[in-house]
Amino acid sequence: MNDDLILLGHGSGGKLSHQLLDELIIPNLSGVPAAGQNDAALLNIGGVKLAFTTDSYVVDPIFFPGGNIGDLAVNGTVNDLAMMGARPLCLSVGFILEEGFLKSELARIVISMREAADAAGVAIVTGDTKVVPRGKGDRIFINTSGIGAVEHSLSINGAAARVGDKVIVNGCIGDHGIAVLSAREGLEIDSGIKSDSAPLNGLVTELLPLGDALHVLRDPTRGGVATTLKEIALQSGVTVKLSEENLPVNAGVKGVCSILGLDPLYVANEGKLLALVAPERAGEALAIMRRHPLGKDAAVIGEVTESSAGRVVMETMVGGVRGVEMLAGEQLPRIC
Amino acid sequence: MNDDLILLGHGSGGKLSHQLLDELIIPNLSGVPAAGQNDAALLNIGGVKLAFTTDSYVVDPIFFPGGNIGDLAVNGTVNDLAMMGARPLCLSVGFILEEGFLKSELARIVISMREAADAAGVAIVTGDTKVVPRGKGDRIFINTSGIGAVEHSLSINGAAARVGDKVIVNGCIGDHGIAVLSAREGLEIDSGIKSDSAPLNGLVTELLPLGDALHVLRDPTRGGVATTLKEIALQSGVTVKLSEENLPVNAGVKGVCSILGLDPLYVANEGKLLALVAPERAGEALAIMRRHPLGKDAAVIGEVTESSAGRVVMETMVGGVRGVEMLAGEQLPRIC
Repeated sequence: MNDDLILLGHGSGGKLSHQLLDELIIPNLSGVPAAGQNDAALLNIGGVKLAFTTDSYVVDPIFFPGGNIGDLAVNGTVNDLAMMGARPLCLSVGFILEEGFLKSELARIVISMREAADAAGVAIVTGDTKVVPRGKGDRIFINTSGIGAVEHSLSINGAAARVGDKVIVNGCIGDHGIAVLSAREGLEIDSGIKSDSAPLNGLVTELLPLGDALHVLRDPTRGGVATTLKEIALQSGVTVKLSEENLPVNAGVKGVCSILGLDPLYVANEGKLLALVAPERAGEALAIMRRHPLGKDAAVIGEVTESSAGRVVMETMVGGVRGVEMLAGEQLPRIC
Repeated sequence: MNDDLILLGHGSGGKLSHQLLDELIIPNLSGVPAAGQNDAALLNIGGVKLAFTTDSYVVDPIFFPGGNIGDLAVNGTVNDLAMMGARPLCLSVGFILEEGFLKSELARIVISMREAADAAGVAIVTGDTKVVPRGKGDRIFINTSGIGAVEHSLSINGAAARVGDKVIVNGCIGDHGIAVLSAREGLEIDSGIKSDSAPLNGLVTELLPLGDALHVLRDPTRGGVATTLKEIALQSGVTVKLSEENLPVNAGVKGVCSILGLDPLYVANEGKLLALVAPERAGEALAIMRRHPLGKDAAVIGEVTESSAGRVVMETMVGGVRGVEMLAGEQLPRIC
């Protein structure tokens, strides 16, 4: 295979994405710091601390159970800001439309964006629209970039995990990826699974009073919980041990995954966060989540067991322990 | 024709783009203020004044005389910030790659982005990469969003033109559009025309001491000088009178335009700005531009003649006067 080609897997959020970033993009674009591995960049402008992030959305299909590309583009960027503990303030939106796309569908998407922005309490303040000829795009791609205010002095980032930290997730994993896949394959009626697409900034606001006990926040989107935890383990230089038994997974997602041979640990989420919290405050963190509408199925799914080169292992239901690596190749392309 | 279809012209920056924005996007996305008609949104965050803007780049071909999609994406967003009188600080970058695109070409583009960012004095601080299947994209699309610091208290915007203002352009018009068109049609050797893609923030810094005499700054990209002036005339409720004789146009651009039946007034620029300046300081503004490397061919091309519903007229070389409207349809699709 020609080693010079971009593959679908380079967009998976997994191992190939990291290689492309680490070997090609970051070295050549020296302005991007290694901290680009966090969900947003931190800026200090005139004494005001801001978070700044960008994401492009190319999900296929553009309408799926639980959402569409528009609200996904708002929630995804809101969540990247929230994962820095920032209060999302405003978004930009860039549309790339394919000639022949329907204005009526664009209107539905734009309305969803406004509703999602209202729900998250952010304003969409600037935008751009381009059109490419038929066959040179795929209906609609959306970029959203966002600015948030960092109003705390905590160091919440992927390198801050410490031995003893509990790994908490705010609910069932894999819903978004399986909802999109089901819609793409025409399985939505059978599975009944909806995307979990939601803004997490409200939940993060509730967690911030945990203060220094709140070490890492990260939303497990492309590449799923497995890839996100592996990133954290590598950034922090720790080992994370997961408990398969404690992973919350909806029955429908389990069913589709077992039929298609997918592992929910690698399936994308769009309304989930992983919080790594010092053990003495973990119970409190769990209680905060469970009181929140987006956290009623929250669970402690693992802990940081030792300080060593970044590893993730999982205690399986049958009592064994297996290594967990980043997503290799693409499990589900174009999931966001 | 089905009125529900998105047309290439909706991305032209001209009349159809304005219709789409005014009739579909803005009403449904209520967060976007009418001030979205300026090149960037103005924000006040914690007492710090910022400009925020976004643009997606879909230029075809991606490499053209004088630049490529990468430096274009940096310069274009830097310029949108500069047109608010803001000092560009940092950019985000979002890549949408087509499966099978060459990593070696991506590397060339990324290196150009770094060089352009260095030249403009901005940092690229955050990014995202997506990959779409073969045939669902077109090699590479790039979104850049940018944040700039507004360190003046002037009201530089499209609604600030006043009767008597001189319209000054910093050099020859139409180079970018004709360079891209020539590359697309294989005419580059014949025409010898290069894109004018350049960062205008340095030139704007020189102009800011004009203070209250500096009314409008706008870069005439998609839709060209004609469309941009019509926008300004409408926003300010004035009539702008252009002098065809004084329009600086390179001989090569004139030649290609006359062969292909194009009007340089509607051709995109990527290193040009229009400044509307109070008459008493216009000579000084012109002198500032001519001393700057990006302004040696600067010229006064018109003036604001009366306060009335937004009109642009042009005194032609043969002595007549004709109305100048926004670009209708698409003259040159995918020019940026």
